Amino acid sequence: MAEKTIRFGILGCAEIARKVSRAIKLSPNSTLYAIGSRSVEKASRFASANGFPPSTKIYGSYEAVLDDPDVDAVYVPLPTSLHVRWVVLAAEKKKHVLLEKPVALNVGDLDLMLEACDSNGVQFMDGTMWMHHPRTAKMREFLSDTQRFGHLKSIHSIFAFRANPDFLKNSIRVKPDLDALGALGDVGWYCVRAILWATDYQLPKTVIASHGPIYNEAGVILSCGSSLYWEDGKVATFHCSFLVNTTMDITAVGTNGALHIHDFVIPFQENEASFSAAAESGFTELVTGWEPMPSEHIIVTDLPQEALMVEEFSSLVGSVKGNGSKPEKKWATLSRKTQLVLDAVKASIDRGFEAVEVVG
Amino acid sequence: MAEKTIRFGILGCAEIARKVSRAIKLSPNSTLYAIGSRSVEKASRFASANGFPPSTKIYGSYEAVLDDPDVDAVYVPLPTSLHVRWVVLAAEKKKHVLLEKPVALNVGDLDLMLEACDSNGVQFMDGTMWMHHPRTAKMREFLSDTQRFGHLKSIHSIFAFRANPDFLKNSIRVKPDLDALGALGDVGWYCVRAILWATDYQLPKTVIASHGPIYNEAGVILSCGSSLYWEDGKVATFHCSFLVNTTMDITAVGTNGALHIHDFVIPFQENEASFSAAAESGFTELVTGWEPMPSEHIIVTDLPQEALMVEEFSSLVGSVKGNGSKPEKKWATLSRKTQLVLDAVKASIDRGFEAVEVVG
Repeated sequence: MAEKTIRFGILGCAEIARKVSRAIKLSPNSTLYAIGSRSVEKASRFASANGFPPSTKIYGSYEAVLDDPDVDAVYVPLPTSLHVRWVVLAAEKKKHVLLEKPVALNVGDLDLMLEACDSNGVQFMDGTMWMHHPRTAKMREFLSDTQRFGHLKSIHSIFAFRANPDFLKNSIRVKPDLDALGALGDVGWYCVRAILWATDYQLPKTVIASHGPIYNEAGVILSCGSSLYWEDGKVATFHCSFLVNTTMDITAVGTNGALHIHDFVIPFQENEASFSAAAESGFTELVTGWEPMPSEHIIVTDLPQEALMVEEFSSLVGSVKGNGSKPEKKWATLSRKTQLVLDAVKASIDRGFEAVEVVG
Repeated sequence: MAEKTIRFGILGCAEIARKVSRAIKLSPNSTLYAIGSRSVEKASRFASANGFPPSTKIYGSYEAVLDDPDVDAVYVPLPTSLHVRWVVLAAEKKKHVLLEKPVALNVGDLDLMLEACDSNGVQFMDGTMWMHHPRTAKMREFLSDTQRFGHLKSIHSIFAFRANPDFLKNSIRVKPDLDALGALGDVGWYCVRAILWATDYQLPKTVIASHGPIYNEAGVILSCGSSLYWEDGKVATFHCSFLVNTTMDITAVGTNGALHIHDFVIPFQENEASFSAAAESGFTELVTGWEPMPSEHIIVTDLPQEALMVEEFSSLVGSVKGNGSKPEKKWATLSRKTQLVLDAVKASIDRGFEAVEVVG
């Protein structure tokens, strides 16, 4: 059966919506159909600045997008504190939901959204783009190779960028009433997801936040980190920050191999990406050197990861619409596990860096 | 004044002594002069297997090496528990000391050695080879560049290798009576030194060991990690292990830049080495990509890092011998700071992962 073209409505004119709108245009099974903002003028300006088709429906409210019967799915880049309201309403209006991260302020809020999606039979996916890069699948193959990689023992991840003064003053991501998790929710989300991904989504038993998180005047986190511990002895650490140079690392070390990547969230280039895989590495005893050397793996892509994300989402939506399939629960599960760990890290910070159990 | 050729005596036939003997041969101001082992036969076999000059003095005890008036300096690759005895005796015999790491079981023991070296006017240096690679100086320049790198905020280091069953059963490095610090002293030493190096040797205020160190049956650490915290908000983490694939990372993140290296202890190749420097990195908003990209810096060397270490040590010894200079205290200071942090990490592990103050 030919795939349906999924008609997207965009809720709001966030900066990230520019990138995802381009991705919807690039995705072969998706189309920009409607945009709603709190004013028609703003929505109209955004649509024309970002090359939306002339036929795009321009609405002066988010409700109007949800009330349009021809909108199949909504992309929700609103501030986190507004997610419950708009995702629940979208689900009730039978719109499938592609939700920007961090998905929620806490897992209780997320569960309200997931229950609404579930009971209304709509697909849910969060906007973690790198999950959809074919490099990610190739790296997963390596981590799952019990010969070359062996068994995972430690993971380290960093995601940071240096926010400019305007961001630190005005961005929704540093406002306690909009994105109360600050850097932990924004950049820390990716670190936690990376760590869970590396473990094949085993929840840690315990997290212990690092001392010395940095806050803004309103008490929102600008920089923090944590250790994570699994029952089987695996350990992970991460560091996330709005205050240092752009850095996007995953280091995963196994009994037989190691994976290194320095651009996991946003690849250095759009059309190809690489990772380093070390397997059975040794060093020579007498003469300085390694044998064998780590190998570099290059993955070429036709579409950027954000378009692949949209394509995957629309494909799932198409199955629900066209075949009456059940929504794919995998993506909701990954969002929920990520949120559970974020919540535990936040709790550890709030409790003076106590060990906090992660309860699935 | 022409540099003197420093005549080395080697105490013992440890595996690492093969590499350092080659380094002494390669170093232009150093010569292999004597070797002592607990048996003449063993010393003789080692000398011929490793291409010592035919004139090398072969001794059946360590004392005999120290009693040879023509030995200028000794290289001490003995098990850590023997360091105090032999380093103090060597210093009393006016021999300069190149000491394999970990230098001591604790800073109290190290101080006995450093005091002996000081009061006898002999040079002390530990055998941390990578400190002497010209790449290390180039990386230091980058970290000190307040424009390109900015101010250091976080550091992560790993040193691990997968020990084979024979090592795990028989190596001195897993024996409580010989190298009681296990992986912390052996591979953790490098991580702690790397972190201190990155901070320009500022001692952390506090360390908190990671949960879940792995021990052998005798209670010696095979794998562990720690977080380190500085007064000014810098944070570091490290992970060291005998149980996973060879991994040698330093990741240093500053306000304006980031440094990555994956072969800091032993470069991938003997004749050249590289590091990655990111400065003022940004990612493009609409199209996937970074601008600017990190840059790769390649440093070519004539001599391997271990020969450069020997050359530097012999040069200092030559100054003491030839010019009556005072021994250079820098190297003792770096050893002592590294040991202080190791001791604090060990104390944190022993106290159930409590925060432990590092008192210089």
